Amino acid sequence: MLTLFGNLDSGNVHKVQMIVARRGIAFRRVDVNQTRGEPRMPQFLALNAMGKVPAVMFEDGSTLSDSGALLFYFAQGTALWPENTRQQAQVLRWMFFEQYNHEPSLAVMRYLRRFGGGEAANAERLAELDARARFALSVLEDRLKEHDWIAGEGITIADYALYPYSRMAGESGLDVAMWPSVAGWLGRMEAQPDFLPVYADGAVETLSFADYFGN
Amino acid sequence: MLTLFGNLDSGNVHKVQMIVARRGIAFRRVDVNQTRGEPRMPQFLALNAMGKVPAVMFEDGSTLSDSGALLFYFAQGTALWPENTRQQAQVLRWMFFEQYNHEPSLAVMRYLRRFGGGEAANAERLAELDARARFALSVLEDRLKEHDWIAGEGITIADYALYPYSRMAGESGLDVAMWPSVAGWLGRMEAQPDFLPVYADGAVETLSFADYFGN
Repeated sequence: MLTLFGNLDSGNVHKVQMIVARRGIAFRRVDVNQTRGEPRMPQFLALNAMGKVPAVMFEDGSTLSDSGALLFYFAQGTALWPENTRQQAQVLRWMFFEQYNHEPSLAVMRYLRRFGGGEAANAERLAELDARARFALSVLEDRLKEHDWIAGEGITIADYALYPYSRMAGESGLDVAMWPSVAGWLGRMEAQPDFLPVYADGAVETLSFADYFGN
Repeated sequence: MLTLFGNLDSGNVHKVQMIVARRGIAFRRVDVNQTRGEPRMPQFLALNAMGKVPAVMFEDGSTLSDSGALLFYFAQGTALWPENTRQQAQVLRWMFFEQYNHEPSLAVMRYLRRFGGGEAANAERLAELDARARFALSVLEDRLKEHDWIAGEGITIADYALYPYSRMAGESGLDVAMWPSVAGWLGRMEAQPDFLPVYADGAVETLSFADYFGN
């Protein structure tokens, strides 16, 4: 059985949970949590030298990490990865935008507020990130005013990549209702077959870090 | 003829210059410079709503932006984008690592030192980024100790993605000689056919922002 390494709080991990649920692939999950420093522990670094979740171990013991790389891998053979090269490049364009602009503003704001000391302790940093997050959401809004989906005429893995941290924008201190086309697209995502909500666990079994790696 | 939008100081723009040179594709370049705020000007946003360089306009007037998406596009049909899905996923894994970990530490350090007020004005931020940059370079070092190339047994677009800001590490305040396998790999890159050094312009013609967009 496939093993997914990562925690339920991480939007990056959730992207993989979503696509694996959509594909109907059974998996177990090993809880690896940033707030406990687990992704940088030697046991985990041996599996993914980049020190990040999500990572996946296949039944043959080989591994693959990075949410974007995993979305790409699990989308093969489906319309979530379109056939045309220019369309594929557009999908990647939005996925790089997510990792470079959207996630580092929205997800970091959420992290600072929830796990990093809260609003008062991070006022200056949050103000700087707020401007970047609002720009990222306005770029999505402009796209979704005219289109149902992020990168093409149909749903692709770019939609999966951008969903979790957009849905959790409230935890980042932003009201997604201010970007109504983004809010509408979140609803379309949630109406997809085998949709898995944020924080839900799609695993058939969950192991703690110590259970899997030992102490 | 292909038109590339971007400046010579940008490592992200240079990635596209490198692959277009390797493919032997003639292009003209329109200088669009972050230090003058040009990527966020309305004329440019009409072409790339993400407000970033590089962007490309094809002869039919269609556009594509993002360094990673452009590397992917121009690598099609060459071994720089391998045929096997798992190998492709590994290439993307390293390209996402570059945009999420490597570039936001190395390139931002370089920007702050060169264009953002210098070392003294940014001491705290630079110290924080320094730790992240050293981790990113140590991840590359560990990979390149055992392999000639970043993502597979042969050169791929992951090598192109990671080259410019690794080569310019000195401008970020880091001595690449501390990561000897990275230094060796930079040399292998520079021995490639049709290699284009950082800051070199491969364009057959260069236009200023005002020349192209008007004032």
